[in-house]
Amino acid sequence: MFEAKFQTFTDASAPALGTARLKLLRAELERRGLDGFLVPRADAHQNEYVAPCDERLTWLTGFTGSAGTALVLADKAAIVVDGRYTLQAAAQVDTASFEVVPLADVSPERWIEKNLPPGARFGYDPWLITQDGLERLRRAVTVAEGTLVAVEGNPLDAVWTDRPPAPLGAVVIRDPALAGESVEAKLERLRAALHEQKLDATVLSDPHGVAWTFNIRGADVDFTPLPLSWAIIPAVGRPTLLVDGRKLSNAARDELSRHAEIVEPAYLERSLELTAANGAVIRLDQATAPALLATQIEAAGGKVSKGASPVSLMQAAKNEAELAGMRTAHVRDGAALVRFLAWFDAEAPKGNLTEIEVVCALESFRRDTGALRDVSFPSISGAGPNGAIVHYRVSEATNRRLNPGELFLIDSGAQYEDGTTDVTRTIAVGEPTPEMRDRFTRVLKGHIAIARAVFPVGASGAQLDPFARQYLWAAGLDFEHGTGHGVGAYLSVHEGPARISKLGTVPLARGMVLSNEPGYYKTGAFGIRLENLEIVVDGPEVPGAEKKLLAFETLTLAPFDRRVLDLSLMTSDEIAWLNDYHARVLKEIGPLVEGAVLDWLKAATAPLKK
Amino acid sequence: MFEAKFQTFTDASAPALGTARLKLLRAELERRGLDGFLVPRADAHQNEYVAPCDERLTWLTGFTGSAGTALVLADKAAIVVDGRYTLQAAAQVDTASFEVVPLADVSPERWIEKNLPPGARFGYDPWLITQDGLERLRRAVTVAEGTLVAVEGNPLDAVWTDRPPAPLGAVVIRDPALAGESVEAKLERLRAALHEQKLDATVLSDPHGVAWTFNIRGADVDFTPLPLSWAIIPAVGRPTLLVDGRKLSNAARDELSRHAEIVEPAYLERSLELTAANGAVIRLDQATAPALLATQIEAAGGKVSKGASPVSLMQAAKNEAELAGMRTAHVRDGAALVRFLAWFDAEAPKGNLTEIEVVCALESFRRDTGALRDVSFPSISGAGPNGAIVHYRVSEATNRRLNPGELFLIDSGAQYEDGTTDVTRTIAVGEPTPEMRDRFTRVLKGHIAIARAVFPVGASGAQLDPFARQYLWAAGLDFEHGTGHGVGAYLSVHEGPARISKLGTVPLARGMVLSNEPGYYKTGAFGIRLENLEIVVDGPEVPGAEKKLLAFETLTLAPFDRRVLDLSLMTSDEIAWLNDYHARVLKEIGPLVEGAVLDWLKAATAPLKK
Repeated sequence: MFEAKFQTFTDASAPALGTARLKLLRAELERRGLDGFLVPRADAHQNEYVAPCDERLTWLTGFTGSAGTALVLADKAAIVVDGRYTLQAAAQVDTASFEVVPLADVSPERWIEKNLPPGARFGYDPWLITQDGLERLRRAVTVAEGTLVAVEGNPLDAVWTDRPPAPLGAVVIRDPALAGESVEAKLERLRAALHEQKLDATVLSDPHGVAWTFNIRGADVDFTPLPLSWAIIPAVGRPTLLVDGRKLSNAARDELSRHAEIVEPAYLERSLELTAANGAVIRLDQATAPALLATQIEAAGGKVSKGASPVSLMQAAKNEAELAGMRTAHVRDGAALVRFLAWFDAEAPKGNLTEIEVVCALESFRRDTGALRDVSFPSISGAGPNGAIVHYRVSEATNRRLNPGELFLIDSGAQYEDGTTDVTRTIAVGEPTPEMRDRFTRVLKGHIAIARAVFPVGASGAQLDPFARQYLWAAGLDFEHGTGHGVGAYLSVHEGPARISKLGTVPLARGMVLSNEPGYYKTGAFGIRLENLEIVVDGPEVPGAEKKLLAFETLTLAPFDRRVLDLSLMTSDEIAWLNDYHARVLKEIGPLVEGAVLDWLKAATAPLKK
Repeated sequence: MFEAKFQTFTDASAPALGTARLKLLRAELERRGLDGFLVPRADAHQNEYVAPCDERLTWLTGFTGSAGTALVLADKAAIVVDGRYTLQAAAQVDTASFEVVPLADVSPERWIEKNLPPGARFGYDPWLITQDGLERLRRAVTVAEGTLVAVEGNPLDAVWTDRPPAPLGAVVIRDPALAGESVEAKLERLRAALHEQKLDATVLSDPHGVAWTFNIRGADVDFTPLPLSWAIIPAVGRPTLLVDGRKLSNAARDELSRHAEIVEPAYLERSLELTAANGAVIRLDQATAPALLATQIEAAGGKVSKGASPVSLMQAAKNEAELAGMRTAHVRDGAALVRFLAWFDAEAPKGNLTEIEVVCALESFRRDTGALRDVSFPSISGAGPNGAIVHYRVSEATNRRLNPGELFLIDSGAQYEDGTTDVTRTIAVGEPTPEMRDRFTRVLKGHIAIARAVFPVGASGAQLDPFARQYLWAAGLDFEHGTGHGVGAYLSVHEGPARISKLGTVPLARGMVLSNEPGYYKTGAFGIRLENLEIVVDGPEVPGAEKKLLAFETLTLAPFDRRVLDLSLMTSDEIAWLNDYHARVLKEIGPLVEGAVLDWLKAATAPLKK
């Protein structure tokens, strides 16, 4: 049998303990003279995946979802979660202790406004909230006529007696052939950006940015090879890299010491004080920097410039070496995917597969490459109606058998040292219905519209997003998520700042890697998502063109399920695109597989005719 | 010969006087202890078209453009204008006295930061600036270490000895059959909106909103039948309508008194004081309310809620009577346009027409309807390279002959009592070049993509805008303006809040009227713009649809110039749309014209085959 090493299917949650823990926390709050406390699902870097020691929300409530906020008062408590998690939260937390509040109805701030008694002292951990988040919180507590109190030392940590230690994943220096740009060159570009923006320094509060700048990777959280760390980059002088010394080999320390002062994270405040002297203007990343850093900088006489990290756009536009690595990773991943898809087509019709088995199989095919470092996120493996749950994560409790006549949706990704992948395929088990074909074809038409898009430099993802929706719109349908997100190079599978969505106002630029993943979800019935990664590349040279054009090069290499198409809905251009793509998949992956898998691949990529 | 009654072609500007007037203003500033002063091109309502008494910028500088800001210091002065107006400003103002500053290089705020001496007292008229504008100004003056001073009584008015009086255009009660909703019903809806938003009152600072709410029209400024006026609508109690009594006939006063207290505008502050008592929360329209009103409300103990006027969205979604009026107006306007286009095709090839003559002719054909109240904006009549100037306004100085082999662009509109029109056609004079055909066809394809768009309720104009650009993008081209703006019903031809543009995040809603006007402009050569107005209507009922769909119904009825098309670039669907549209134009306008004009119309609307 197959086995998953990078993903679990049990819920580590212990809801039964929630009430006892809440009591412990309340006692600690009372000891500190606090009438309430905020427990966000966050670490000090606003990471998507956090280390076990930062799973405070799970410890307190039992809730294991990736987003949520607990609000604890002396006599009541609530957990506010978004639409993805209302059912899960109700199942996981002790609802006698915690009211489960849907975010769409009541935000944490609104809950505070309604429930915090006048005159109450409401505490928060200034490490776990951004400046903007604090601003919203302050407004709510003011409306409730309470007092907001920044705690020193998290009171929850004080009662979490078996709290795991902070992770000490080894920091690895990145192969220069994969990084493609030296740390010196990156620091040079960063300093130029600081000068241009009239900044004296920037704090890198996002560990992804630290990893990119210093050409390092780490192993502190699941799914993303980031090293929990901070850095301060001054416009003039030597950078400071704040990382636990125990993560560094002597060789790594020597290499990093060439570029920066290596300092323990405990000295972050002191380092900020030194940087802030003489009224220095210091950029704090609006999206990730803890509010505490702003307080510390201002207390030391510095000026905070709240905005985008200057690293963010640089990191998003991959260089040629990074793109070469991403391409190699996608050929490797494509071969594993093709082996998986061939296996799936042989096994699924027997009617014995479950969602968990499929996840295990796919991970095993990827591990067989010998290069898999991690999965890039927990696979979404949804059979039939489970496929319609956009952020579904299969557990032993929800595990479903794949039945004939259903669609199966598998969204997964890999972390290889040369690149990160993220791919979704929707596969027919048995014969799809006409409705499934219609919806699948409309989603694919939207996918193709993005893949074939040609757009001028300066165009944003928001301007491309509608192309993915137009064929669904025509049928009175849509999907309630963005069309695409940025992807890192052996870093986060969800990387900013560009995205293809209504909110994606950042112009797309050469070298960015974005997902192209329109979908359609029929609640209780089936889900469809078709996802490839795309590189933003130079567009065609058109005679008479007045604008430099951009276009997409598809990275992902795996057949789409031709059996679910309704060719009558497709134009000849769209069919030609699909045939070209499949011919490319056969050409690049064919030589890497053999026997029955090769036969399957040839059949799966055979050209279609209208 | 034809004659224009609603548009002039001379520049009223007197640049030679600029230096003397600047001296007068400076003396007045000194007398008041001011070291600088802001002169925006604005009235107290942030109107697009202002009354002669509000043309302070023109009086001071000679500049007659529709947007700009003069900054006057003791020893230097500047006028900041956007890209449309840099050449015009340089020609119109005395550059020995005023530095002409392109807005793209230096904003008024940046100019102040760089030029205001520390300690200087910088004055502004709080009637002529919004709260947001004041915020930006305050930041700039603070950076320059100056002091910002709100003046009482505009110092420029004190030295403008022959300043025209405020206009006294008669207020007309709108025919209930055209308004389609009673004032009572509108006030009812407004009060419900105030309750829902927890507001105690709203100030209507936009006269268009006053006109809509009270079913009145006025005659105070050019091109838009608005009555300069204010209103205060409380959630409970009787509204106050602040309008100069001399604009009201006894009948109009009697009618309006049924709905509101009629008060002189001079009592606005007193009315706000009464409304603001007991800490009332009062909505001020972020886009149009003068900063002074916020000061007055707060001084009286009220709370300002800055945001969108609750009238704005109600006004944008026209009711059936308004839409019926718009349709009737467009049939009438279409007949005038067809007469004009037939005349143009007969005259233009002779090579004697000029841009001004064409404007006069078009206005005359519209006046011949017997229903023309005004043009809805100064016609843009651009021959050859002048067509490439997006906001071109022909004057005696720039007037150009229409030469064979050139494209001619005419963007114009009418105000009829039942509706407002806005239409652009681009017409070949003689034989167009292959490049002109290619560009014209791409613009038309974008226009058709919008006209045929089907989209769910909730979709915004920003989500439609890219459809208009896609065929230009494919050729490395684009146009640097939005695709469409809202249009009022016998009100402003530029009406918010919805628009089809990158910035148009307001969801489109049933009954809104928007322009659909993609273009292409080749500097120094030719300009193309193809504009119809569209009503947002219910979309098709699709079986299985999960979302309510919307679509467009085209209002404008006039042929597109088939001679400039490259049919090889068009799909059969696009050609079918054009043939259907032309068949509709023939069907609706054919019965209203005869003889040679009807012959011309039949030929101009004959179906095309690929």
